[in-house]
This record gives sequence, C-alpha cells and structure tokens, in this order.
Amino acid sequence: MDSEAFRRHAHELVDWMADYIESIEERPVKARVAPGEIAGKLPESGPEAGEGMEAILADFRGIILPGMTHWQHPMFMAYFPANSSYPSLLAEMLTATLGAQCMSWETSPAAAELEGRVMNWLRDWLGLPAEFEGVIQDTASTATLCALLSARERVTDFGINERGFSGQRFAVYCSTEAHSSIEKDVRIAGFGSASLRKIPVDDEFAMQPRELAARIEADRAEGVTPLCVIAALGTTSSTAIDPIDAIGEVCRAQDVWLHVDAAYAGTALLLPECRWMLGSARDVDSLVVNPHKWMATNFDCTAYFVRDPEMLVHTFDIQPEYLKTRVDDRVRNYRDWGIQLGRRFRALKLWFVMRSFGREGIQAMLRRHIEHGQWLAAAIDEHAAFERLAPAPLNCVCFRWLPPGAEDEATIERSNRGLLAKIQDSAELYLTHTRLGGRYALRIVPGQTRVEHRHVEAAWRLVRETAAALED
Amino acid sequence: MDSEAFRRHAHELVDWMADYIESIEERPVKARVAPGEIAGKLPESGPEAGEGMEAILADFRGIILPGMTHWQHPMFMAYFPANSSYPSLLAEMLTATLGAQCMSWETSPAAAELEGRVMNWLRDWLGLPAEFEGVIQDTASTATLCALLSARERVTDFGINERGFSGQRFAVYCSTEAHSSIEKDVRIAGFGSASLRKIPVDDEFAMQPRELAARIEADRAEGVTPLCVIAALGTTSSTAIDPIDAIGEVCRAQDVWLHVDAAYAGTALLLPECRWMLGSARDVDSLVVNPHKWMATNFDCTAYFVRDPEMLVHTFDIQPEYLKTRVDDRVRNYRDWGIQLGRRFRALKLWFVMRSFGREGIQAMLRRHIEHGQWLAAAIDEHAAFERLAPAPLNCVCFRWLPPGAEDEATIERSNRGLLAKIQDSAELYLTHTRLGGRYALRIVPGQTRVEHRHVEAAWRLVRETAAALED
Repeated sequence: MDSEAFRRHAHELVDWMADYIESIEERPVKARVAPGEIAGKLPESGPEAGEGMEAILADFRGIILPGMTHWQHPMFMAYFPANSSYPSLLAEMLTATLGAQCMSWETSPAAAELEGRVMNWLRDWLGLPAEFEGVIQDTASTATLCALLSARERVTDFGINERGFSGQRFAVYCSTEAHSSIEKDVRIAGFGSASLRKIPVDDEFAMQPRELAARIEADRAEGVTPLCVIAALGTTSSTAIDPIDAIGEVCRAQDVWLHVDAAYAGTALLLPECRWMLGSARDVDSLVVNPHKWMATNFDCTAYFVRDPEMLVHTFDIQPEYLKTRVDDRVRNYRDWGIQLGRRFRALKLWFVMRSFGREGIQAMLRRHIEHGQWLAAAIDEHAAFERLAPAPLNCVCFRWLPPGAEDEATIERSNRGLLAKIQDSAELYLTHTRLGGRYALRIVPGQTRVEHRHVEAAWRLVRETAAALED
Repeated sequence: MDSEAFRRHAHELVDWMADYIESIEERPVKARVAPGEIAGKLPESGPEAGEGMEAILADFRGIILPGMTHWQHPMFMAYFPANSSYPSLLAEMLTATLGAQCMSWETSPAAAELEGRVMNWLRDWLGLPAEFEGVIQDTASTATLCALLSARERVTDFGINERGFSGQRFAVYCSTEAHSSIEKDVRIAGFGSASLRKIPVDDEFAMQPRELAARIEADRAEGVTPLCVIAALGTTSSTAIDPIDAIGEVCRAQDVWLHVDAAYAGTALLLPECRWMLGSARDVDSLVVNPHKWMATNFDCTAYFVRDPEMLVHTFDIQPEYLKTRVDDRVRNYRDWGIQLGRRFRALKLWFVMRSFGREGIQAMLRRHIEHGQWLAAAIDEHAAFERLAPAPLNCVCFRWLPPGAEDEATIERSNRGLLAKIQDSAELYLTHTRLGGRYALRIVPGQTRVEHRHVEAAWRLVRETAAALED
C-alpha cells in the first residue's frame, strides 16, 4: 500500500469512525453470535499474496463487526467501562503513527517527559500527596504485581530478587471482596494462594480493619511475615470502599506495605465530594487507578503511583550493556518502573484527554454518571419486586429481582439468572452479575462516556419489563 | 468535542499522518533535546477548564514532536526496530474506535476468534508444529515470564501457585548472551538471579549444548531442580542463533521446559532459507516472536506459542463469579492465557498486515532487509579500518572501528564510544552499541519497514566519514 492509498483509506475510515460513534445506538450492544460462528467465516490459512484493502475492510465490516460487543455503546453497563473519547481517539492515531517504543528516555525523550508531567497532573487531581510519583502501565493486574514485588523486595532487602525464596513465609492481605487479579499476582510473585488472607468485610462489603489487625498479629505470632495489604477503593462487585485510613494505621503499626487498588473508583477522587474515600493517604505506599476505565482514555492506560520511586526502580532495574545510554544518570528510563521492557507512548492520549476535558469537564462527566447510579439505586429501592444488595456510593448498583412467590434463595437465584440471560440475549442492554454475601446479584454500571439519563431510564424499563414478562 | 469537530480534526490528522510518513526523512532520526528540555515547556498543573483541540495539536507539533526519536525513520538502525506499516495504522484506528476490552470471549467474540485464527496462520507461516497454539501478548518480557511460570507450575504440579515456594531450589538456563528480560523475569517469578545459569557461548555467540548439559547434571547432583532452558533464536547483541535441536535433546533427556526467545529474529522463520534456525522444534515447549518488531505490525503485538495450552491456562486461570459467563466451557477466554486481565484488540492489526502484505510480501521485505545486512557486513569486512565482531546471519551487524595507531583495547573502546556519540549527535543515523566477548561493539540493524539500499549506503558512508573526521 502506498501513501496515496493509505491517505484515501484513512480518510474513509475517519468517516466510518465518526459514523460508528454517532450511530452506535443502532447496533446491538452485545454481539449476537454463537461460539465458533466468526471463526467459521475466516480462512484456516493466511494468504500467500497480498490482498487489497477494500476486501480486508469489507471483511472487517461484514465478519468482525457483527461479532463485536460494543464497549463504547451507552447501553454497555456491564463490568466496569473501558471508555474512549474523541480526544483520546485523536491521540491514538498519532501514537500509532509515531510508532515509538518508549522504554528509555533516549528512545523517546518527549514521551518520557510528558509522562512525568501528566502523572504529576493526575496525582494532584486525585489528591495524592506531592511526594508520590507515577508511571503509566498497561493494567491494574500488572501494577498490583509491581506493588507486591516492591513490598517483597523491601522486606527482604532485595534478597528474593537476588537469591529467591529460601524458606521465608509471607502473608498478603485483602478483603473477601478484592479483585481476582490479586490472587493471580500473589501466585505469580511466588507466594502461593495459601498466603493470601481474605479479611472479612462488614455489611457494606468493606474490609474490617480490626479483623485485619488480628490476622496480622496472628501471622506474626506464627512466624509469618506480613508483607502487603491491598485495600480496595471500590471493589469490583459493588464499589465498596475499604477504610483506607483505618487500614493505614494498622499497616503503619505493623510496618506493612499498603497498596490501594482504586482501578475503577479512583477516578472519582477528582471530585471533592468523593475525596473522603482516600482519607489522608498518609500510610499509603502505592495506588493504582485506571484512566482507561472511567476517565475517557482508551484502554490501556493504568496509572501506578508510588511514594518511593527509588524502591520501585531498584526492584526492576537491570542494565545490560545494549540498553545503556549516555544520559542514564540524568533521566527517567520508565522501563525500570515496571515489568515490561517495551512501552507504547500512552502519555499522549492522557494528555489530550486531560487538556481537552479539563478537570472541570471530567468532574462534570463523573457527576453525571454518579447521578445516574443514584437515580437507579433509588428506583430499585422504590420498587417492591426488586431489592438492592449493596450500598451504591458511586454508579455501580447491585440488586436482584424478587419474583412473586419465590421465597427460597435457590429459586430467587434461578429467576435472576433467567432474567439476566433474557436481558443479555436481547442485546439492548449489557449488564453482568456477581455474588454478594452469598447471594446472586445483578450488577449495573451506567458509566460509559456518552451515557445519558434516557439510557438509564431505558435500562431500568428493560429490566422491569423483562422481569414482568418472565412472571407470565 | 462533538462529532463534527472530531471528524474535522481526524481528517486533518490523516493528512498529517500521511505527510509525516512521506516526509519522515526530512526529520532528524534521533531527538536533539537535553534532559528536562521538553518538561520545561509543559505546565506543572493540568488545566481546570477544557482547552481547544487546535491548541493541543499545536503543542503536539511544537513541543512533543521535536522531542521524539523517530522509530519509523528508515535511518533508525538502533536496538531492534518496532515497525509499523500502513495497514497496521488503519487497523489501529479501528481498534481505538471500537475500544473493546478483549478479556473474555463474551466481551468481544470476534476479537477472540480472530485471534485464534491469526495465531494459527502465523504458527503455520513460522513452521511451528501444528499442535502449537498461540496468544497475543504485549511484550516478550511478559511472554517469557509466562513460560517460566508454566514451567514452575508443571514441575511442582501447581504447588507454588497454591502454597508458594517451600524450600525447593530451581535453576533456569540461558546463554551469557541472553536478553536482560530473562533475569528480570527470573526475579519476578521468585527464583532469584542466583538461580539463573548463564551458559557459555561459542565463538559465534551461540549457547554450547554440552556446557548446558554439564551444568544441568551438576545442578541435579546438588539437589537443584533444572526448570527451564531459554534458548535465543537471535540474541539481542548479535542475533546469534542458539542450536535449538541440540539444546532440545538436552531438555528432553533432562525433562526440562524449553522456551525459545525468537522475539526479533523469529520473523525470519517465514523464509524457507532461514527455517534451519528452528530445526525440528520437536522439543520446544514454547516460543515467543514479536510481530511488532520485524513484521510491520505496530507495537505492541507479541505472539506467544505453546505446545500445551491447557498447561498455560491452568497456570493462570482464576474464575471469580463476576467474570463467569454462560459459554465459558465452550470458548477461549484469553485472559487465562497470560498475566493481564484486560486486553486490547491486537489481533486486528496483525490480520490487516498478514492479509495486506500476504506471506510473499512479508518474505520480500525480510529478504530486502537481510540483503541490506549482508551488504553492510561485506562492506565492513572489506574495509581495513573496521572490524566485524560477530557473524551476521540476518541484518544485525556488530563491528568496531580500528583507528590508526590504536592498539590497546581501552583506546579502541574510547575511540568507538566517541564515534558512536558523534553519529548519534548528528541525528542523521541512529545506531547503538553492545559488548561482545568483552569488546565494545557498534551495532547496526537496517530493518525499518521502509529502509532502502540508499539508506544503508548513507549509513555506512556516515560511519566512515565520521570516523575519518575523528582521525584528523
């Protein structure tokens, strides 16, 4: 393909991109395809000779697109969103064009320095103490792994990096509601699932600091080294907010690393009225928040903040001859701030978003989303056939249907599974489920960049009408 | 920003993108900025109110761009390339627009099924046995970590995942020329640097299988469990090719996992004349190759292939309630094929590239690049003032300048450091250095998607003329 062909196709695609976003509501939010259906339309071998872009784009539209679930659809209220926005898209076009690999300062000086700046901007917007510094990583899974590894090396004076595990016994703490990636990370880092203590939660699904303190003391008494507490600023199931300050006091007293998983809800720290969620942050060692979830910045863009950057860098730095540059003593080489050597130029899209929206613009979006959540929570509370199953501090609402006559838990769960299946199969609304206190819960998160009140009303109407139809 | 404004700016950007690539040679390949220079032009705080896109794009052009090193410049001959191409760029525009998060089949069915298909296409193009299956990850650092973790769990029957390390002693093997990410991964996985055995290389910088066998036997005799051998199909310093079949025999006899790091050079397996590098692959358990390096596919796009996908999945799968879907028993959820939960739709760009180039198109590009390398190697061999320091099986050429009168190693190294600095400061050519057999080496890789013979001639002329000027 030559430059002229690229120019022509790229212009066509820009119109397609704008049309796609404008008309996204005309599409089913959730793909209506059976397993194997798309693969069955794709050849088993790659082509010998090159094909024209017309044919490739036609297959994109005809085969791939009907099999996609549309994450940018305002009726996408499943999981947590992975939001995009126009400024973010523009930046992604530039990032792809530059094609820079941002492992070292020298391989992309402006990318490294912009990353430092936007991380400082974001730190200040989130209300994190000024001594924190940040790095952009890919996902919260990876950032939390970095926290565990830093904690591991701090407590062993880099001994496991050097000599590996040698009989030490460690414990890592999170609540029973913490994200599954924490257990995955605990395994990767060599601790094993058995070292993960899942601390009980209160009736709002937040970690109980007294239970945490008791467990840490019991571990110490048995010769186990308490290593790291991972507090959730917004659990995955219900955005429960662990009491960070109270947990921090336990961590300080016990000299344990405190990592805060604020992957989704952390963005709400931009709002003064939500700043209570973080407390003073006095004892926080690290925090992860994903602008790629609730801050209109394309996936992937995870912000990982640490109080002690030296500790992070010393956990990861390896300097082979072929990576050394003449300025290493004067610059940040972000390859030493995480697991991967290779790094995309992710700071650009965050810069575009922060500047284009401004703090006020993002705050306004967050407040709209939280209003949507509060409206839904109130509507559910007012309806006799539905029951809310958790507090909704932000815009994630967990609830269930109480079908007439269904009195035992098993029947209620079966009915709710049926309701969710019907809604998902309608492809008009995408929501998912979880389990809270043993109970099967429907879970709805109206938080897509472009979601409006009419979508939330439509979602709630669909839930009610689908339930009513199932009653007949 | 509304749809009309996006459409207008995106069209402007398309012209900028096409112009940028067309005129990239007019730019210095390497940024000419001092540490702190770019940061000094960026405000210390993010804006309260949103800003217009004109201002943001003006700053992109005026502040960011002059501070970028241009990885898509044909005179970029440093490190290994991270190549883009027009079809890849078009796909990146679509991937960003869809903004799909491809953790599970259900969250993006077409993305999951396309990924399975293109991984099969690539497996066949590379000549890997048909039982291998692939997954797209972000970087080779991560893929190699997956191999180490799978090997760890295979040998302990998932015991470390469950209970952590408990006194076992393991050893991991690679050559003295292996990539630094291996040691980083060995640390992350909890083995410690001390468990990494760096096996001596022969005078072509390839691992010596007899030394490997001896070291494995010695470890076993001392009660250490040999866990994993990581063979390089193309070392980072000089693309030395470890003898995979001979190493495989050792691994089979000793029941040790064999992972092949073919991050850069593996793409050359598309050429029948390079297929010897992999041998029969009979004993290979896993292999990583980066289409984002030498296959014209935007970073990041790492292909990780395994012989036993069940082993990979069982190493990583965790199924919390909120991630369960109704089809989990019938589909691939690629979140269980690696470390991160969240995943971009990376298969799209690889599909666009493989179809647009076709196998023949990629083969033609690879052959051109290898010819460039061979031409350079021959030119260096013919020149009395330069010395080649390693075989050049592909297009990475390692050499040094022998300035007149410089007889001791220290003087030669100092002269070559000076030569490299002069070339880098010229910003006309970007190459880097390494160390081979203790000797400081310049390292040049003419492998950018659009590099032509005239660029290679210009690079060689610049090296000679800069050296000559230093002589004066």
